[in-house]
Amino acid sequence: QDKIENKSQLVNENLKKCLNTKDGRLAASLISDFLQFFHLDFTLAVFQPEINTLNGFDSHDALSRDLGMSDAEGNRNNPLLLELIRCSRNKDKPMPLF
Amino acid sequence: QDKIENKSQLVNENLKKCLNTKDGRLAASLISDFLQFFHLDFTLAVFQPEINTLNGFDSHDALSRDLGMSDAEGNRNNPLLLELIRCSRNKDKPMPLF
Repeated sequence: QDKIENKSQLVNENLKKCLNTKDGRLAASLISDFLQFFHLDFTLAVFQPEINTLNGFDSHDALSRDLGMSDAEGNRNNPLLLELIRCSRNKDKPMPLF
Repeated sequence: QDKIENKSQLVNENLKKCLNTKDGRLAASLISDFLQFFHLDFTLAVFQPEINTLNGFDSHDALSRDLGMSDAEGNRNNPLLLELIRCSRNKDKPMPLF
């Protein structure tokens, strides 16, 4: 029993450290954005208490700004995680004008 | 009741379409990789049946390859979602040699 509790604390410690960084917070918010977009309500209902973030998640718009994505990329109609994957795939190609 | 069922079908339809694309599968696998890394077992236990993917998720190594990340980036010690965010943040900077 003690062993399990120690492991659980250690795990939470890593997660807490991660969520205290800007990138960690972004990652959790991207997951939340994806879950919300597809109305994965059961997963969301477990995810939020399990990562136990006090400050909630960043909004879609704040996330979009932080990731340097413009509205022109049509990111309102897609989860930002998908946009991020698309951008990273195209990072070696020149940006299209439109 | 019918209305709720229709909405649920529509939602699942969007998700199904998304998961049938390479990027959609990558996104779901990145989320699964993050949840596994931090041992968010309760969320994982709901996420997997809720997105109802028949083929499971891509492994950490397969994901890493698909995203064009090298082992040198130390991505074994971090969830790939965090690495992806870091890479996208640095995409305008020249890659370091080491």
